[in-house]
Amino acid sequence: MPQVDTARFLADLHELRKIGTFKTGVHRPTYSPEDMESRRWLMAKMQEIGLEPVMDGVGNVIGRHKGPGPHLLVGSHIESQNEAGWLDGALGVVAGLALARAGLPVDVAAWADEEGHYGGFIGSRSFIGELEEAEIDRLANRYHGKPLRQALREAGLEGRPRIQWEKGRHKGFLEIHIEQGTQLESAGLRVGVVTGIVAIRQWKLVFTGMQDHAGGTTMAERRDAGLSAVRLLAEIDRNFPLVCGPRSTWTTGRMTLEPGAASIIPGRAEVLFQLRDVEEPIIARMEDRLRALVQESNRREKCPCALEAVSLSTPALCDPTMQQALCEAAEAKAPGAWQSMPSGAGHDAQYLARIMPAAMLFTPSIGGISHHWAEDTKEEDLALGAEVLAEGAARYLAA
Amino acid sequence: MPQVDTARFLADLHELRKIGTFKTGVHRPTYSPEDMESRRWLMAKMQEIGLEPVMDGVGNVIGRHKGPGPHLLVGSHIESQNEAGWLDGALGVVAGLALARAGLPVDVAAWADEEGHYGGFIGSRSFIGELEEAEIDRLANRYHGKPLRQALREAGLEGRPRIQWEKGRHKGFLEIHIEQGTQLESAGLRVGVVTGIVAIRQWKLVFTGMQDHAGGTTMAERRDAGLSAVRLLAEIDRNFPLVCGPRSTWTTGRMTLEPGAASIIPGRAEVLFQLRDVEEPIIARMEDRLRALVQESNRREKCPCALEAVSLSTPALCDPTMQQALCEAAEAKAPGAWQSMPSGAGHDAQYLARIMPAAMLFTPSIGGISHHWAEDTKEEDLALGAEVLAEGAARYLAA
Repeated sequence: MPQVDTARFLADLHELRKIGTFKTGVHRPTYSPEDMESRRWLMAKMQEIGLEPVMDGVGNVIGRHKGPGPHLLVGSHIESQNEAGWLDGALGVVAGLALARAGLPVDVAAWADEEGHYGGFIGSRSFIGELEEAEIDRLANRYHGKPLRQALREAGLEGRPRIQWEKGRHKGFLEIHIEQGTQLESAGLRVGVVTGIVAIRQWKLVFTGMQDHAGGTTMAERRDAGLSAVRLLAEIDRNFPLVCGPRSTWTTGRMTLEPGAASIIPGRAEVLFQLRDVEEPIIARMEDRLRALVQESNRREKCPCALEAVSLSTPALCDPTMQQALCEAAEAKAPGAWQSMPSGAGHDAQYLARIMPAAMLFTPSIGGISHHWAEDTKEEDLALGAEVLAEGAARYLAA
Repeated sequence: MPQVDTARFLADLHELRKIGTFKTGVHRPTYSPEDMESRRWLMAKMQEIGLEPVMDGVGNVIGRHKGPGPHLLVGSHIESQNEAGWLDGALGVVAGLALARAGLPVDVAAWADEEGHYGGFIGSRSFIGELEEAEIDRLANRYHGKPLRQALREAGLEGRPRIQWEKGRHKGFLEIHIEQGTQLESAGLRVGVVTGIVAIRQWKLVFTGMQDHAGGTTMAERRDAGLSAVRLLAEIDRNFPLVCGPRSTWTTGRMTLEPGAASIIPGRAEVLFQLRDVEEPIIARMEDRLRALVQESNRREKCPCALEAVSLSTPALCDPTMQQALCEAAEAKAPGAWQSMPSGAGHDAQYLARIMPAAMLFTPSIGGISHHWAEDTKEEDLALGAEVLAEGAARYLAA
């Protein structure tokens, strides 16, 4: 079984943390000078380990193993959310280096823009052949509006070829990532073997009422779009527990009443609503109930509600054989201190899963903090995660 | 009984409409050049009719009747909301001119800034002695931030004395105003005799939860501030009809979930909530229920709710004798085509009512449109309103 140099692995993580340091975290937005510096740092590390590094036309860095296969592809992303944590993404990339250093036949990848500064998952989508030039033309930075093309030019990536997957080269893709929740911590566990990455169904609910003076309009006369929204959200709150699965989540992240003044009855209300689950039949049940509740609202309320799909992703199930190898590795390295669990957040693995077997490991997040510079994980958990990943990779390669 | 020259009255209204015209409405924000022009126009009209006009240190224009009393004070405001209607306020001021022209012993007033560009009711509050110099120092324009002192200086008002009421001079204050609602129109009526001006109780409800990733946090772990807000608002919706009065209103005009992103569980929710009624005991009942519901929410929910008073006005009841005179006048001039009704909106009369008997008439608003340039009233209803006001004034003076 492979021996991971965990001291070296942790040292690499701390070295990378120094690029774009922000408080105890990092600020490395996609294609920023700090992000590009981290990609060059990664290439140097790959070289040192004996991998053949390339940076491609969207910034993906891939370090190719020189020996014979079968190979695994291991990685995650290296850029960060703004002023965010040091491990989110970086952990999976640096763990890939650790596996390579331990002699495993792995290609290591850092996928660009998983964090969605420009589009989300640009790198992994490009690699699997699901990012068209026309989309690159269209995308722009969500915070400051810089066109993606301009960002690529300024980062020196313009004109470079984009690398796509080589059919048959990889037996699977592995990604280790921080949990970004408190489930492992709450249960006192140290490793999570991911069963799948949830589908996220995002909807916009738009209620149309009649904007009116809050003093001059009687309750009976009103068409209060905000009130119709509140009533529907209260129904969702009562109804969804009857149709959801054990791990389903649903969230109203934004709600806007227009015009939004104290003395004006809202003429329009807009609600951003999403639901997540890893199982299609459960998602279908929740979506059916959502549609039924909207229909019921439209039958009862004076303010019609339009249900608009914003984005409808599908669940990405982790490969059973790879999961099995990771479970055995977890039980070998951390007996009784691991569990299987879905990933509520999206990860590069969900795109790689479209072209090859894929699986993921989770390592605990202290206090569940994520997308914040205070994000952290105990060093012994990081080291254990890398060891379980290496052991699982070896078992899967041998299977 | 007084004879109102309704043709002249309508002609005055149309003349005033030409100052600061915006589409079919007007744009005369407080102390703007257009507003000041309208005040000078008013003074010239007063002079012509034989009143003695003065503009005071906050822009109030008061035209004093030269003959013996008992006098009535009649008026409203002359500035407008931004790009708003031609009658809101102007109607009550020009009706005052019409009464004076008909020979009634009235002082006519245009109170400054009823519309709250700077503070709200600056003019009427100054007149009744409830506007301190320190508040004038503090106030600034709510749209562009210009200090009130600077605005007064630029309007040429700096240093002018402020006129306060002369005890014993006025037997009462009368104001005619557009309804700003659809109650008269819906009932097919042409005149409303106002029973009182509602109290407006404004509250901010602040829910404190825990901002978290919408994917990584199970439903059981969440402290979703937005959901706690939705549940409380749904309870208010169910409970208030059990304690409210026949004309009570309650409105959630604004609701903000923070940070307001699709995939982030709201860590904070802020709700602007107000209730209105003309009767103190009903207001007390609704407020008691609101407090009880907040208490119940805090017992049940994981996100505490803090109830903060934003502003708590008291109802202003119209003088019964004046109301009686207006009801008789309405029945005489428009038999069966009038009703008594509360005012859901605030008016200068609510401040004048603190120092003298006060009463109001409403004239219908076409489609209930208000605070918009499309606001309008049928000319025959305007004329009828002025006639009822004059008749009511005469009856009250004779009573």
